[in-house]
Amino acid sequence: MKRINLDHISANPLLPDVKEVMIEAVQKDYANPSSQHMDGEAAAEALETAREQVARLIHAASPKEVVFTSGGTESVNHAIKGAAWANRDRGRHIITTNIEHNAVIRSLRRLKSQGFTVTSLSVDASGRVNPQDVADAVTDETLLISVMHSNNETGTLQPVGEIAQIAREKKVLFHTDAVDSVGVLPIDVQALGADLVSFASNPFHGPAGVGGLYIKRGTRIWPLLDGGIQENNKRAGAENLIGIIGMGKAAELALRDMDQRIAHLNTLKSKLLDELPRYIDEYFVNTHPTHSLPNLVSLSVKYIEGESVVLMLDDEGIAVSTRSACATGSLRASHVLMSLGLSHADAQGTLVISFGIDNTKDDITAFLKALQKTVKTLREISPLYKKTHHD
Amino acid sequence: MKRINLDHISANPLLPDVKEVMIEAVQKDYANPSSQHMDGEAAAEALETAREQVARLIHAASPKEVVFTSGGTESVNHAIKGAAWANRDRGRHIITTNIEHNAVIRSLRRLKSQGFTVTSLSVDASGRVNPQDVADAVTDETLLISVMHSNNETGTLQPVGEIAQIAREKKVLFHTDAVDSVGVLPIDVQALGADLVSFASNPFHGPAGVGGLYIKRGTRIWPLLDGGIQENNKRAGAENLIGIIGMGKAAELALRDMDQRIAHLNTLKSKLLDELPRYIDEYFVNTHPTHSLPNLVSLSVKYIEGESVVLMLDDEGIAVSTRSACATGSLRASHVLMSLGLSHADAQGTLVISFGIDNTKDDITAFLKALQKTVKTLREISPLYKKTHHD
Repeated sequence: MKRINLDHISANPLLPDVKEVMIEAVQKDYANPSSQHMDGEAAAEALETAREQVARLIHAASPKEVVFTSGGTESVNHAIKGAAWANRDRGRHIITTNIEHNAVIRSLRRLKSQGFTVTSLSVDASGRVNPQDVADAVTDETLLISVMHSNNETGTLQPVGEIAQIAREKKVLFHTDAVDSVGVLPIDVQALGADLVSFASNPFHGPAGVGGLYIKRGTRIWPLLDGGIQENNKRAGAENLIGIIGMGKAAELALRDMDQRIAHLNTLKSKLLDELPRYIDEYFVNTHPTHSLPNLVSLSVKYIEGESVVLMLDDEGIAVSTRSACATGSLRASHVLMSLGLSHADAQGTLVISFGIDNTKDDITAFLKALQKTVKTLREISPLYKKTHHD
Repeated sequence: MKRINLDHISANPLLPDVKEVMIEAVQKDYANPSSQHMDGEAAAEALETAREQVARLIHAASPKEVVFTSGGTESVNHAIKGAAWANRDRGRHIITTNIEHNAVIRSLRRLKSQGFTVTSLSVDASGRVNPQDVADAVTDETLLISVMHSNNETGTLQPVGEIAQIAREKKVLFHTDAVDSVGVLPIDVQALGADLVSFASNPFHGPAGVGGLYIKRGTRIWPLLDGGIQENNKRAGAENLIGIIGMGKAAELALRDMDQRIAHLNTLKSKLLDELPRYIDEYFVNTHPTHSLPNLVSLSVKYIEGESVVLMLDDEGIAVSTRSACATGSLRASHVLMSLGLSHADAQGTLVISFGIDNTKDDITAFLKALQKTVKTLREISPLYKKTHHD
């Protein structure tokens, strides 16, 4: 049975061209890019080519503003902890939101135990933070504002442009976790006006475990990894060159094909949202109707458990998820959904459907049919559903 | 012209079997190991197989004690910063040596600026620290001792077994940076008695940018990367699965072939050291005669500059180095060589020759011949050499 992947937010398949350059890199026996002899030159060139490809994707002023990391989580940890410690003489207060990824939340929790203070802002029922709330939260002690670009569970975009401007006016650093946006949507770090932007390779079909941090020239930040002089002295350690080469190629393709990818993804998303009422009732959409990623829809289906739907669809050959794969194993309800004001019961019935450029309209139809069947089966055995629908 | 690689300490080529499993992994489209659906299972299995392969190589009591990282530098940063912060209630004093890798030195420098204190011990002229000095340096405030297993510039092994015992007796944590030892020499973390052991994949012919940290069960340590629940909650972030699969295979092969590899490397090392006096004079060997790695020789050749030798040998198709690739670009003399008591001039004449299992005796002969020619040429233009050899 052909599997249908509607869980791209957990893992995006590598593009054929990305696989090709990575296989070449595996076979090539690259030397160390920092070597003193000529064997290192090819490695150093491959590294800098990838850096240029990534810098173009995010429209950095210079490739030197791109630091390769081991993924979005390292980028976020580096940005937040590195900025906090390097600028602690300015003050020790940081502003964020209630719906950030755990990499942000837990980095900030760590800083709290080291003497920093954190203000975490609520979002409205549509899942967006109010820029005025950010402005109001800034004090003389504020050193950093960290607000995500798009939420990984709802796909909702935050007003980061306005927040970046507030940060600039207040002379506070601004970091955005753009892991699920970079390579999916056009991101121009200069136009955005952020000082620090975290991103990863897999959301745009590059390898997992590789990412980048945009550090605007002149930003005071400590390395997270201290040691050698790699990455312009900003991130020590021998490079994962094979992964970085894959990320560079994926960045090049994402930039080249972005418009047509977005058009395709939006077609799938519209089809799903438009046709959904024909298949199930009593659900609501957590994803913002306009300010949202083209490749993700979050639904909360009443009277059922999302986990059960995932398992039943899995048996039908369809992969979806209920939440971030990073949080799998946690028994608590999603902090993101609770922040939107969902009840615990409604949060439990949540499904995240995330598309990729490899999906087709038929995949959506297959999903809708399977969902209809699954929801019907689960509601038939739901005491709560029976109680409220006793006619 | 066939190049001869005598700079394995900078980069080890991947073994054919390692390449094969990595290429398979690139082609396989693994899902996220943390996924909720069945597509994630193959990924999770591949991850745990690699963890078992690595755990066997270092003889960990359980694979759960192995945390995959982005390389030796991350492992060292994690071990040192994570242990220091998690145990700061015990005291804020750390003991190390003057000859550690920059990952250790700079991690400790970072901690110093955060209120920790560091005692850095000298080594003797043979390049080894005296365990008694370590014991004497322990105070009521000491929380951690970090001493490297083998030095990456001289190949000299430290008496880490004795130091681990001192740490146990004094109830202080012990970390060893074993990046250049694990997979090259038999390392049994249980017999060694270390709490934290940093290592990397490339020294045993796995991919660069992948490593591991052994965390003995029960050791109090903070993650360096906060976020998701990966790696038993000890290291957040989507895994570099392709790299980790390569590391696992390399670990399996290193364990299987260790004895014959060591025998081969020792043959090359003995040949180099035995025949060297026939080719050049006025040099000395910085590598310890018995307590040293089988794959590295550090020489200081008088009246010449190591950098010039590297460039001239490069033209002859032979790659060697003067120091750690991580420190390339730094203009200062090696802190390791200065710690051995070398004069600045002698340190400048240092060459690091590092073999791999792919080298042959003919490679050593070719190197010796080229070195003879190079040293002769360089000394002919050396004012200092002329001055001291005016007869």
